[in-house]
Amino acid sequence: MKFRRASPGPILDDLRAILGDRLSTSTADREARARDASHHHPEPPDAVAFPTSTDEVARLLAVCHAHRFPVIPHGAGTAVEGGIVAVHGGLCLDLRRMDRILEVNAADMDARVEAGVRRKQLNRHLEETGTGLHFPVDPGADATLGGMAATRASGTEAVGYGTMRENVLGLTAVLADGRVVRTGTRARKSSAGYDLTRLFVGSEGTLAVITEVGLRLAPVPPATAAAVCPFPTVAGAVDCALELLPGPAPARCELLDEVQMEATRRYAGLDHDPRPTLFLEFHGTAERVEEAARAADGIASRFGGGPFRWATEPAERDRLWQARHDGYYASLALRPGSVGYVTDVCVPVSSLAECIDRTRREIDACGLTAPLYGHVGDGNFHVVVLIDPDDPGELAVARRLGERIVDHALDLGGTCSGEHGIGLGKVDALERECGGAVEVMAAVKTALDPAGILNPGKVLRPRGDCAIVGRPEPPTNPIQATNP
Amino acid sequence: MKFRRASPGPILDDLRAILGDRLSTSTADREARARDASHHHPEPPDAVAFPTSTDEVARLLAVCHAHRFPVIPHGAGTAVEGGIVAVHGGLCLDLRRMDRILEVNAADMDARVEAGVRRKQLNRHLEETGTGLHFPVDPGADATLGGMAATRASGTEAVGYGTMRENVLGLTAVLADGRVVRTGTRARKSSAGYDLTRLFVGSEGTLAVITEVGLRLAPVPPATAAAVCPFPTVAGAVDCALELLPGPAPARCELLDEVQMEATRRYAGLDHDPRPTLFLEFHGTAERVEEAARAADGIASRFGGGPFRWATEPAERDRLWQARHDGYYASLALRPGSVGYVTDVCVPVSSLAECIDRTRREIDACGLTAPLYGHVGDGNFHVVVLIDPDDPGELAVARRLGERIVDHALDLGGTCSGEHGIGLGKVDALERECGGAVEVMAAVKTALDPAGILNPGKVLRPRGDCAIVGRPEPPTNPIQATNP
Repeated sequence: MKFRRASPGPILDDLRAILGDRLSTSTADREARARDASHHHPEPPDAVAFPTSTDEVARLLAVCHAHRFPVIPHGAGTAVEGGIVAVHGGLCLDLRRMDRILEVNAADMDARVEAGVRRKQLNRHLEETGTGLHFPVDPGADATLGGMAATRASGTEAVGYGTMRENVLGLTAVLADGRVVRTGTRARKSSAGYDLTRLFVGSEGTLAVITEVGLRLAPVPPATAAAVCPFPTVAGAVDCALELLPGPAPARCELLDEVQMEATRRYAGLDHDPRPTLFLEFHGTAERVEEAARAADGIASRFGGGPFRWATEPAERDRLWQARHDGYYASLALRPGSVGYVTDVCVPVSSLAECIDRTRREIDACGLTAPLYGHVGDGNFHVVVLIDPDDPGELAVARRLGERIVDHALDLGGTCSGEHGIGLGKVDALERECGGAVEVMAAVKTALDPAGILNPGKVLRPRGDCAIVGRPEPPTNPIQATNP
Repeated sequence: MKFRRASPGPILDDLRAILGDRLSTSTADREARARDASHHHPEPPDAVAFPTSTDEVARLLAVCHAHRFPVIPHGAGTAVEGGIVAVHGGLCLDLRRMDRILEVNAADMDARVEAGVRRKQLNRHLEETGTGLHFPVDPGADATLGGMAATRASGTEAVGYGTMRENVLGLTAVLADGRVVRTGTRARKSSAGYDLTRLFVGSEGTLAVITEVGLRLAPVPPATAAAVCPFPTVAGAVDCALELLPGPAPARCELLDEVQMEATRRYAGLDHDPRPTLFLEFHGTAERVEEAARAADGIASRFGGGPFRWATEPAERDRLWQARHDGYYASLALRPGSVGYVTDVCVPVSSLAECIDRTRREIDACGLTAPLYGHVGDGNFHVVVLIDPDDPGELAVARRLGERIVDHALDLGGTCSGEHGIGLGKVDALERECGGAVEVMAAVKTALDPAGILNPGKVLRPRGDCAIVGRPEPPTNPIQATNP
């Protein structure tokens, strides 16, 4: 990628003509959007736009396209692979003022929202209006639905309900040159042409800017049972999960390893068993969830698991699951003052125990502390490597560790990213995973964004003759001193 | 699209050097691959290739690409939008000799097959090897899994298990120039880069040739209940289906309208009620399916439905569902000597009754006989317009009727094709549905197949400066005299 260094001044004048004082160049606004929730080195954009409509986004993109000025779409900033870091400067499109719930069709169990609507906002609305529905994709953070679509988010309920890949019906998206397109319809299925919806879902703002999202909703289950069960080994827990998937079919199926369990025990002063533990949830009628929990208890005991505790009352369910909910902050508290270098991979479930075992050995060999937890029902797990923010050596060790974890996942038939995306952090890993298919991705990118202005430097290595006005990528990527 | 008319002779020599006598130019082989199962006017390819490996497909494509010679991938030929008709001549790639089941991973409930494996072959294999698994996407015809992926097939079980969109884990595909790429992994979810799997699924051979398919499998349900229930009106049946979806959650949910029910009654001499009828199936444990059937009975009676008959024994289930299975041939028998002009659309389920009502009025107004049946759980229905093969006027009327049905579906928030694809038949309809998004599809097509050799004339209108050696598209599309 070539860089034509130029002052963004004239560009900003054109952008301000569209937005007025909803275009900010203040240091505070720029710095606040320089980083996501990860260790990635922050880089502020040159300006921050607060559009309130698809039409405004289209006009902004037309200007940026004409000037070859980078554009970085921004949701809630809760992702962890550096996807919103403005490595080449440019315009941050903060979409959080596009927060209208445009329609809810309860009979069809679908909704349409602007990209800046947060998932908790939507679920609150669905509850308050008595629809009996919810949006089930739950990445933990209160992300925007546009951001979740852009990063193909998933989370704890993916094993029961699917990820954003399965739960986005259609999109409104603005192309690099400002053209607005709609993909998909409200129909549940379609064989009408190329699946542009799925192409844009997970493209991390590099192919188009998502401004509206059509979503599938799911009925709120009439009953929920939560369960917790420790196992002698991670392998026992994973084998049990494999057996549970086709049968009692949990809607959530989480694993915390012994390091993570010890972390949560210390963090919350909980008196629970510090062995590897499965956290389960079953959705359905009262009879069905009770039947499922009892069946799961029986299966768990065959794999050495127990005691198997379960509950259907909300307060008791929350208590059982507290260790899971505390996960990330509990892990950071294992090493006060540390920051978390977070990575995730996803493998076929039958290879999960092996992948976790190899990962645990890599962690032990590198000498850092790194709890491990994950969505075992999907074969997806996270490692939080606790590193000293003042020690670049530890960052290098964590990076090398992350690469080795990816290599093990690929070796076992898995993927380099289960749900965190590629962003800045896994561009190399994507190439190792996909081989020649990365060339196909690059061809699609060039076709839709020939000037390379959409979130440059993310997902794919910049290539070819695209030319943007912006800063060259910073040569180093030193760690930040604040916790994510 | 420009056509450089040239003899394919030298090209065929190069292709024969790869395949020997597995390249055929016999009239019989060419004519046998000139048409699919629809009314679309047949056009034979110039030659038929019978490759047996991805590597051979790659070498064939490299030759065709160098010569700008069209390539038409061919599965079982069971589709109905003319997708395999060789409108510009070229090479038919008959993939049915690539019929190896490459791996079945029972623990992970996935499999990998060559593109020519048929779905019944896979299901037989899964049964005979005692896996307890099946591949649930069931379009009726014994299609190849490569063809099903290429057309984003679905069918009766889509409401319970999803379509090929949800059930393909990954692909091996050959690009237009012969490069081989692998998309996806065996991991159940991934946020690693653009979703090329979903881009190729449903691209109908216009972006790449699919040679291997990674599939999700599902447990064979321990029990199945089949049910049949007539209703006073289509609207009552659809309203009932809407109520069933979140609750008893049928794995199949089919509707036959009164014309189709009368057709099946006559065809099979069945003594059943000729009113609009729901055909349901529930999967799960014996208790669960009995509970679901009883709940469905209660719900149906609230919508005027009944008698509600259900069964769990296979022979009795088959008897109940016979009218549904007979559907297509029963409809043709309504008018002996006719051929079926088949179309399908898909709308939000809450608009299905309205769409069917408008469709029925359009049918009545045009004076042709056209039974209607569909996958009501998805909002998807089919119309089989019975036309006289010797009367071009009737074809024109059927075409106009098909267009009006599409317009109603689009007006109601739906799609022009629920599961039949675009092929030759719905290129215009796709443009009406997608507007500017068709330009995005065209940009992707041009990026991946700049010479336009992959299944030209299908899905998208040919455009730009692509140049293939082949026949110009035939100016007319007269109907064929044989039944599909």
